[in-house]
Amino acid sequence: MSSAPAITHVGFIGLGIMGRPMTRNLLKAGFDVTVHSRTRSKVDELAGEGAHAADSPAAVAERSDLVITMVPDSSDVELVARGPKGVFEGLRTGAIVADMSTISPSVTRALADDAASRGASWLDAPVSGGDSGAIAGTLTIMVGGDAAAFERARPVFQAMGKRITHIGPSGHGQTAKLCNQILVAVNLLATSESLVLAAKAGLDLERLHQALSGGAGNSWSFENLGRKMLARDFAPAFMVRLQQKDLRLVGEAARELGAPVVGTSVVEQFLRALEASGRGDDGTQALVTVLESLAQTTVQGARA
Amino acid sequence: MSSAPAITHVGFIGLGIMGRPMTRNLLKAGFDVTVHSRTRSKVDELAGEGAHAADSPAAVAERSDLVITMVPDSSDVELVARGPKGVFEGLRTGAIVADMSTISPSVTRALADDAASRGASWLDAPVSGGDSGAIAGTLTIMVGGDAAAFERARPVFQAMGKRITHIGPSGHGQTAKLCNQILVAVNLLATSESLVLAAKAGLDLERLHQALSGGAGNSWSFENLGRKMLARDFAPAFMVRLQQKDLRLVGEAARELGAPVVGTSVVEQFLRALEASGRGDDGTQALVTVLESLAQTTVQGARA
Repeated sequence: MSSAPAITHVGFIGLGIMGRPMTRNLLKAGFDVTVHSRTRSKVDELAGEGAHAADSPAAVAERSDLVITMVPDSSDVELVARGPKGVFEGLRTGAIVADMSTISPSVTRALADDAASRGASWLDAPVSGGDSGAIAGTLTIMVGGDAAAFERARPVFQAMGKRITHIGPSGHGQTAKLCNQILVAVNLLATSESLVLAAKAGLDLERLHQALSGGAGNSWSFENLGRKMLARDFAPAFMVRLQQKDLRLVGEAARELGAPVVGTSVVEQFLRALEASGRGDDGTQALVTVLESLAQTTVQGARA
Repeated sequence: MSSAPAITHVGFIGLGIMGRPMTRNLLKAGFDVTVHSRTRSKVDELAGEGAHAADSPAAVAERSDLVITMVPDSSDVELVARGPKGVFEGLRTGAIVADMSTISPSVTRALADDAASRGASWLDAPVSGGDSGAIAGTLTIMVGGDAAAFERARPVFQAMGKRITHIGPSGHGQTAKLCNQILVAVNLLATSESLVLAAKAGLDLERLHQALSGGAGNSWSFENLGRKMLARDFAPAFMVRLQQKDLRLVGEAARELGAPVVGTSVVEQFLRALEASGRGDDGTQALVTVLESLAQTTVQGARA
């Protein structure tokens, strides 16, 4: 229905733990990919695998029908888009920017307005699924912005993800991601409180975990992070300090909207204690250690 | 391995919304079942379906190898067991009491000691899965008490449930149930906070629900109770006032054990507000209406 040509040239800015495997999946799907990162070695790495290297976000935009940004925070996206040699300097008329970072919904709307004034479209398209989802190409992608731009971008998203939903207008993808982070955070508190009470009562935690998995108390968190807690595996799939960044965004959005986020705010404060104790690079399942230290117990699975 | 004979005669005390279908499944499995309830009409109903009627808990115990109690609270179980014409008056040597109510772990241990002093065994065997699980015979059953008694009772449990776990010694079944209720309560808060923030931001809640189900934020609560919230379906599968009873038990156990239950206590207080407003007989998913009234919004799914 659309007269806009299919997207063939994709730009990718931000080659971190998520960006690199996402870029590889775009290359695998046959897109002509141009990459940029502040770290030259990461650009070289992807260039060695078939991507074009660009020395600025503007240079990426000049070669691309669609530019993906995947950077840590709102201010990083603003700098990449509006800064010197930024995306907006090189953006073609009719092009699309798909920001797959997790950032503020209100900053997103302002950037989308900017893009529109330059004859381009801005999609917010944050993801969940972590680095394993990025590698496997099974990310969940929540998209806000113009429906026609979403349809044009869909084949690009399909190269990186599986559950791809157009949530609504600009900013709604980011808000959906924040709703996901509320669930992730508060379910993690549920898992921790439950296992710590069980440990204090001296229960066999492996049997407990087996009994409660699959029931009405079950969650992705209980199944997956609960199991890691019992195994004392605190390696990061999702780091405490990144979860904290997302919960800060939740707090800001909740304040703007007038929405109460009581449980989320409890989790944010417990994770703050964890960061203060130097464990910001642990996986979020380390939240349980805060409750453990309050209760002077350890959630330990199979006994020696 | 055990020389104790197989259980053929089962007693059932408490013929409420759970007890009646559980009794029917015992009859279906071929057990000789004797029932008692304070409400005579419920006894007559089951007698018409093949159960023997007894006019007291003691009379049930006199005819039974295993006596099941399924009543509301700790004090009800104490009365049924120790009261006049109670189970302990009629209990046979070598018999088993399986208390499938949700009650206090410490009250449970005292009752188990009493039973042992009379030459009988006490199993705590609370369930989850609600009336639909009771009807389908798919209850989750978490059992505490003597392992040999558990093995003898297993065929009886198998007539009513599916996921049957011997958690550990006396009281550990009840504690496992409380751990389940912590998960249920706090996951419900997660679901409510997330949907209320989304509603305040004007998101299409059906699309949001679809996008987040199956991801890292997912839970039984989000999938099932979230869907009911969007449909404005507050019919009870599990009533607010019963959830409150269970959270009171969580609070008591947590106090005895020295375990922090921060999230659970927030939910207890929100549900208290709901009860105070006269909605104690609603399903627990009505928790969302407390956050809705704080935020002055409504979590409504498909728009008219």
